[in-house]
Amino acid sequence: MSGLPLSLVLTLIQSKNPFPMIEPKKKQRKVLLLVNLFSAANNDTARIIDGRSAAEEIKSSIAIEVSRMKESIGKVPGLAVILVGQRRDSLAYVRNKIMACHEVGFRFSIAELPESCTEDAVCDALSNYNKDASIHGILVQLPLPQHFDEGKILNVLSLEKDVDGFHPLNIGNLAIQGREPLFIPCTAKGCIELLLSSDVEIVGKRAVVIGRSNIVGLPTFLLLQCGQCLQRHHATVSIVHAYSENPEIITREADILVAAAGVPNLVRGSWLKPGAVVLDVGINPIEDPESEHGYRLIGDVCFEEAVRIASAVTPVPGGVGPMTVAMLLLNTLEAAKRALCFT
Amino acid sequence: MSGLPLSLVLTLIQSKNPFPMIEPKKKQRKVLLLVNLFSAANNDTARIIDGRSAAEEIKSSIAIEVSRMKESIGKVPGLAVILVGQRRDSLAYVRNKIMACHEVGFRFSIAELPESCTEDAVCDALSNYNKDASIHGILVQLPLPQHFDEGKILNVLSLEKDVDGFHPLNIGNLAIQGREPLFIPCTAKGCIELLLSSDVEIVGKRAVVIGRSNIVGLPTFLLLQCGQCLQRHHATVSIVHAYSENPEIITREADILVAAAGVPNLVRGSWLKPGAVVLDVGINPIEDPESEHGYRLIGDVCFEEAVRIASAVTPVPGGVGPMTVAMLLLNTLEAAKRALCFT
Repeated sequence: MSGLPLSLVLTLIQSKNPFPMIEPKKKQRKVLLLVNLFSAANNDTARIIDGRSAAEEIKSSIAIEVSRMKESIGKVPGLAVILVGQRRDSLAYVRNKIMACHEVGFRFSIAELPESCTEDAVCDALSNYNKDASIHGILVQLPLPQHFDEGKILNVLSLEKDVDGFHPLNIGNLAIQGREPLFIPCTAKGCIELLLSSDVEIVGKRAVVIGRSNIVGLPTFLLLQCGQCLQRHHATVSIVHAYSENPEIITREADILVAAAGVPNLVRGSWLKPGAVVLDVGINPIEDPESEHGYRLIGDVCFEEAVRIASAVTPVPGGVGPMTVAMLLLNTLEAAKRALCFT
Repeated sequence: MSGLPLSLVLTLIQSKNPFPMIEPKKKQRKVLLLVNLFSAANNDTARIIDGRSAAEEIKSSIAIEVSRMKESIGKVPGLAVILVGQRRDSLAYVRNKIMACHEVGFRFSIAELPESCTEDAVCDALSNYNKDASIHGILVQLPLPQHFDEGKILNVLSLEKDVDGFHPLNIGNLAIQGREPLFIPCTAKGCIELLLSSDVEIVGKRAVVIGRSNIVGLPTFLLLQCGQCLQRHHATVSIVHAYSENPEIITREADILVAAAGVPNLVRGSWLKPGAVVLDVGINPIEDPESEHGYRLIGDVCFEEAVRIASAVTPVPGGVGPMTVAMLLLNTLEAAKRALCFT
């Protein structure tokens, strides 16, 4: 299905569901199972944090909530995506979101715009979704083409529908102790959920976040350091980035490492403190003539080395990625409940 | 003058200026000079970063700008403070602000409310200043009494007059790379200015901020880590706080240390990396029967020990404190220029 236009993917899924989702998932599960077995067979290797199954659990409970909502008020949460251009990674991410919405019973809408479109065209699409009462969450698939003013466009997005949590008011409220954002950015939220569901102690621990992007590094730092009202995490957090001197020495201090640099295999085994918990946010395509599409995805962490040093590690794919999508669904469900006054 | 009600201080200053500012300043300068001489006489001791003289320089250039504005358009920047209750430290801070405004030729207004007043009364005072065209900057002196909802009150403050930079939209825009806040919180901005004016290299260096308050720790972290559009700082920053395990070990990694914990003498010499640059934000009153008011102010850093280990250190008082006030004036000048379209 990966070669089809997204609007067609959407139509096919919503009309006939001709591509049962079970197949690819079964295949992925098998790989993960093998890793887990290997891990279990050898005490010197890390526990594999299975983001896919954690995400499935969350999606199951969301699906139940959606059914309850539909039965009770005849409505379901709606998510809209604005996609500008045809970046291969963006297409893949949007495709995952379409499928996830379908799985849990959300309404999904997409506005696909050519890379040559104007900022006004993007803002118009956003305004339409802002007004659309059947849409409770909107996201602009980032990155936008270089000539766009990302800030200006995101300013148009209704705060109540900002399910990515990237609006500056959301980020400000995330950063300020004692305030609560309407939405927590999905990858950061997914990382914390993985730590919590894996019973990793966070309070007082040293955490290092590699990468200081607005969408992952910064919010992950903020969450680890403070958390939100009901979940206070209190880690001692450092951010490592491209300008950091001796990044491997700083990284080796981490009890909890979140790698979000976007550099394949940046973090080697020698960068890790023995027993560290490693969350690998990187999703980097590398050429692989043997794979179906000529490439495969690897993380920012050299997985084969990390499993021998860390106490727990997320795989790529199947780690943080599925959790990001699950958190997006969760944020959209929250947005819908809020908008529809459904408890 | 410290025992007088603030409104009276203001009236006295604005009418007759009966208390020449030169006296206390001369006294403080003398102390600082002694420290500097001591530093110069012994190469093993740290350079003292003289925040008072850096602040004086900034205030001089602000005063020149104010004169230019007055001559050109017949207007001057106006700052308003809302003070609830009678906390001793708040009174002292507000007094400093009144005097600083007077020095540079700003209009100053204060709304003094009793601790027993309602949130609505505070919001009304804020709304009045929001509408007052002669006021370009407003600040609510924090902390507010415990029963107040600080967030709710600060939400009323006009973003264009938020010269403290504490509005969540300002903090969000400070946090997000590629965006710019209207105002940078004063103490954080003052710390960076002190580093820059002392020719301290920041890029790639390890910085530790002790304390994660909304008003100092968090914005200082954000500025050190990223900076703003024209000033990119790129330090590798860690935040240490009350839950941090082994804070002394982490602090000892810092090339640049910003101590903002509010704990007198928390940071001992053994916590410092030899040659570190130390900015002490703490202003802690401790009992001192020999001093005029029965107490004196000390920092979060044990100064006597720090001067033997650090390469540079700010004194308390006379370090970061005066810079905070200077930055408040600078923010207010910016706000006035923006509001009056004066360049």
